[in-house]
Amino acid sequence: MKTSWETRFAFRTNTLMSSAIREILKYTQIPDLISFAGGLPSPDVFPIEAFKAACEKVLSTQGSTALQYSITEGNIQLREFLVELTAEQGVKVDIDNILITNGSQQGLDLLGKIFINRGDKILVEAPSYLGALQAWNTYGADYIQIETDDDGIIPEALEKAMRVGPKFVYLLPNFQNPTGKTIPLGRRKELIEICERFGTPIIEDDPYGKLRYEGEDIPSVMALDSQMRNQTDQPYDGNVIYTSTFSKILAPGLRLAWVIAPKEVIQKLVYSKQGTDLHTSTFVQMIAHEITKNNFLDGQLKIIKEAYGKRRQVMLDTLTELFPAEASWTVPQGGLFLWVTLPESIRTEDMLKKAVERKVAYVPGSPFFPNDGGENTMRLNFSNASEEEIVEGMKRLSEVIKNELAGN
Amino acid sequence: MKTSWETRFAFRTNTLMSSAIREILKYTQIPDLISFAGGLPSPDVFPIEAFKAACEKVLSTQGSTALQYSITEGNIQLREFLVELTAEQGVKVDIDNILITNGSQQGLDLLGKIFINRGDKILVEAPSYLGALQAWNTYGADYIQIETDDDGIIPEALEKAMRVGPKFVYLLPNFQNPTGKTIPLGRRKELIEICERFGTPIIEDDPYGKLRYEGEDIPSVMALDSQMRNQTDQPYDGNVIYTSTFSKILAPGLRLAWVIAPKEVIQKLVYSKQGTDLHTSTFVQMIAHEITKNNFLDGQLKIIKEAYGKRRQVMLDTLTELFPAEASWTVPQGGLFLWVTLPESIRTEDMLKKAVERKVAYVPGSPFFPNDGGENTMRLNFSNASEEEIVEGMKRLSEVIKNELAGN
Repeated sequence: MKTSWETRFAFRTNTLMSSAIREILKYTQIPDLISFAGGLPSPDVFPIEAFKAACEKVLSTQGSTALQYSITEGNIQLREFLVELTAEQGVKVDIDNILITNGSQQGLDLLGKIFINRGDKILVEAPSYLGALQAWNTYGADYIQIETDDDGIIPEALEKAMRVGPKFVYLLPNFQNPTGKTIPLGRRKELIEICERFGTPIIEDDPYGKLRYEGEDIPSVMALDSQMRNQTDQPYDGNVIYTSTFSKILAPGLRLAWVIAPKEVIQKLVYSKQGTDLHTSTFVQMIAHEITKNNFLDGQLKIIKEAYGKRRQVMLDTLTELFPAEASWTVPQGGLFLWVTLPESIRTEDMLKKAVERKVAYVPGSPFFPNDGGENTMRLNFSNASEEEIVEGMKRLSEVIKNELAGN
Repeated sequence: MKTSWETRFAFRTNTLMSSAIREILKYTQIPDLISFAGGLPSPDVFPIEAFKAACEKVLSTQGSTALQYSITEGNIQLREFLVELTAEQGVKVDIDNILITNGSQQGLDLLGKIFINRGDKILVEAPSYLGALQAWNTYGADYIQIETDDDGIIPEALEKAMRVGPKFVYLLPNFQNPTGKTIPLGRRKELIEICERFGTPIIEDDPYGKLRYEGEDIPSVMALDSQMRNQTDQPYDGNVIYTSTFSKILAPGLRLAWVIAPKEVIQKLVYSKQGTDLHTSTFVQMIAHEITKNNFLDGQLKIIKEAYGKRRQVMLDTLTELFPAEASWTVPQGGLFLWVTLPESIRTEDMLKKAVERKVAYVPGSPFFPNDGGENTMRLNFSNASEEEIVEGMKRLSEVIKNELAGN
């Protein structure tokens, strides 16, 4: 007899919807379509020759180690490198404060696994990162959307929401995905103080922090928390869990990222990761360490920021030039995305089909709101398409929008 | 104030104990210790030159693709290769029946994620694979141990246990971890019939199937299920979920494995994996495909089987020669492990410390029993140590045992 699978799946599979972004990535297969939909780095900046040299070196000198099982925590040399990188950001940690993960998506999943009981309240920016929402849905998260303005999450709104007794607050302070917004220094401190008062941890997701094209770097929430606790001379033991990734500064195809947290939290994450996949690829970790160990990222970041900075400017210029007066958008100082708000009459989810027919794609905004909102918004990526493609794609998109506004 | 992490962790972290195997792997750091504890392949058989050539080729010809994000299901060419490999085993599938995972540990975790509600009964061999028990503990599995004999799980015992309404049955039919036992053809058919009668799925974990050193290959449970359903000419849609890995036939440091299942199940696994880590490393998948595409595994398997077959024989010979008459052990026809049963008076967990002092290590048997049992048993690995080390290590271990029996 045919096995009745449907009746056997666990309750949580009801929330395992394929994400809107994933569905939309399928459009990128259409020939000549210009996609602002994904969050893909540009392959033009991948350091392929550096990878070749690193593979040759690692396999020649440490082949047996690179192909063998290794410890769950992650490669020690790579974690030592991250200790230094973190010190540059003003946070003292040692290797026991770090877990290497398969992309920051795995860090988010493991954090859900160790923290979230079904029904736990999680406070998120409205809108917030879809991948996190999806990861934590699996564990039965109940999201509370916190109102935002141009400077990100609003402290008064956060404080009010604290009364629900949330498990944690999730923030993307730099060039947020999806909006491109950055939380200014003063507001970061206010948010830390509120969370400290309620004893509520902060998860700080920072995939794009190093990709700033204008303005000054702002200390991370973890760095500020460390300062405010006068803990800058001892391994971090504060209220913030930080995650970042090699995906945007080296290559996403590696699936390589890290979590920084108090040791107590890392220990739980390590046990959790052990049952989840034993460890991250030894080979991938050693390649990444071999490439990055001699200040390679300094030059690589220059190349990336130059390329993406120009593309961002082209997209901003075309927005001003081509988009209707009723539209508004964010002006991100870094990252990969900006956020467009159209007149209320436009439903960006409905309009997407027409855009794809016109061979241009974006991500509608509403899936980034776990509860509701954003029906007239869209996220645009400016890192993957070339400058010429951005000009042409924005021309197409502006026509689709104008048509929609004209009621066609 | 210090954040109160302990009060914030989810219920499931109570089951996230570091596994006995993990703790014991730490002993492998002790100089001159001979370890039969891990499940590590021998680095002597890693095809390092083939890896070098594959890295050079993939990065030179498809570098931009190899370093970019890719689809959750897994690399299409690699899945096509696995379609052929599976056809050789007598099961027809297409690429939509396959999910690529980060080692088979991730396959087990994702299966737990999509199937197990807290309290679900899971039927397992007694003893069974520790990694699976650990993965499913996270989702609140309630294990029922099924009695085994020399031919593995006993059909009558399985049938009796079916009355609890289990979510699925978990089997390792070939050279089981930890016992090295293999389920014979006739019994496989009996087990399939029982599960079919009750509508209970089987998860077939087959990491070592290709590592047979004597005797004839036996069709997989999935292949037999396919035959018994007369489904061998259409994509598999039966009652079995199958998983295997590149860890034992290529290199474990890659973290690369696969799950084969009816499409309905793969679809849920794909959505689940998407929220868990987006996808397995594009680069690692393409390297593995580049290496394996031209029948490379045929030669590689010959090398591995020759090396491990000899080591197995050395271990069996030393057991006969050195171990006390009261001890008994399995004689595995393949795989990496054998299983020793000592007189009831010996507690192998207690004895381990003495063994490590004598610079030899094993894994005590009781952690492989989710509920109870096996206090006088141990698992020995014969793939990682050289023949000389096996002779010396078994000498040390036999002395430890004889001392223990003499009450010292």
